[in-house]
Amino acid sequence: MKKSVITVSREFGSGGRTVAKLAAEKLGYDFYDNEIILKVAKESGLSQEIVEKYDEYATYKNSFLYSIAMNAGADAYGGMSFANQVQIAQIKIIKDLAEKGNCVIVGRGGDYILRDRDDCLNVFIRADMEFRKNWVLSHYGETDKKIENRLKDKDARRKVFYRSFTMREWGMCSNYHLSLDSGVIGIEKCVDIICDLARGN
Amino acid sequence: MKKSVITVSREFGSGGRTVAKLAAEKLGYDFYDNEIILKVAKESGLSQEIVEKYDEYATYKNSFLYSIAMNAGADAYGGMSFANQVQIAQIKIIKDLAEKGNCVIVGRGGDYILRDRDDCLNVFIRADMEFRKNWVLSHYGETDKKIENRLKDKDARRKVFYRSFTMREWGMCSNYHLSLDSGVIGIEKCVDIICDLARGN
Repeated sequence: MKKSVITVSREFGSGGRTVAKLAAEKLGYDFYDNEIILKVAKESGLSQEIVEKYDEYATYKNSFLYSIAMNAGADAYGGMSFANQVQIAQIKIIKDLAEKGNCVIVGRGGDYILRDRDDCLNVFIRADMEFRKNWVLSHYGETDKKIENRLKDKDARRKVFYRSFTMREWGMCSNYHLSLDSGVIGIEKCVDIICDLARGN
Repeated sequence: MKKSVITVSREFGSGGRTVAKLAAEKLGYDFYDNEIILKVAKESGLSQEIVEKYDEYATYKNSFLYSIAMNAGADAYGGMSFANQVQIAQIKIIKDLAEKGNCVIVGRGGDYILRDRDDCLNVFIRADMEFRKNWVLSHYGETDKKIENRLKDKDARRKVFYRSFTMREWGMCSNYHLSLDSGVIGIEKCVDIICDLARGN
């Protein structure tokens, strides 16, 4: 069966975003990542201030602080935290995009938000630490923080986000229709498998 | 890169064993499941009595009892439990089979045992509850036990086995190079993807 919506979740440094982008290009589908979805959220009426707060908190390096911060701001904004407001806007946007169809959506718990659609293929991309280290260094460069710690922090934050948002464990096979190790399988082959399944071949 | 060893882990009722068998036939690889590996263990010198004890304990319906039983018998057998003795024999057999190459190995933590081989493709097959219920009823028939409970018990036991054997969580994407939802992707397509990757196409 043809899949007109692809969601891609990925470990940081697995090349998952690149896989998603290339798959979108090959399929002629629209491509939406976090940045684009936040932009749409802003345009659709979410205040600049809330989106900035959300962005600011999302840079927390410690997953415990991140978790607290994501629930902050409730009093100031009519009983809802910054995170809740942004998340509610994002859920609506992702559902609307899926309704239009022919799109690839990266991150933001898209697999969970669209779990009831049978035209949706949920994909997870992962790789081992060595591949991810090399990917991050060659694509995003070095920072003053050790590469191992950058990977650990990102993993921890994605886990916290996913669990708090979905009540499920991040990275479980049961959340996805397809999970691929990009380091072993290769970026191009991952793209081919996704496109082949999307076309219902 | 060609993969001469395929390990297949699977949720009960996902059709994972069938996928593994069909992939082996298509690739011209040897096929080894739990039954065959236990048979080899017996032939290779493990006493009939120990294998029978192992089989008997493996039918425990409660994962807690199963966990205890798997560590029983230590005093009677030179400080090693029945499970340890069978597991040690199995590890050796699986490593030997992988060394010969061109084989598909189902279950028994093969992904973990062979984790250091780069000619090995580790696959997980899963499906949703509805698919698994139908699969089990049509392939193994009804028993006096509710189908939901049969699935839950098997899942619980595989989790306990995998965790105690590998210290990792069963069903995590990070344990496998490829995870497929057989219900959504289809048995034949799962076979095709595995064979394609095994051939290094």
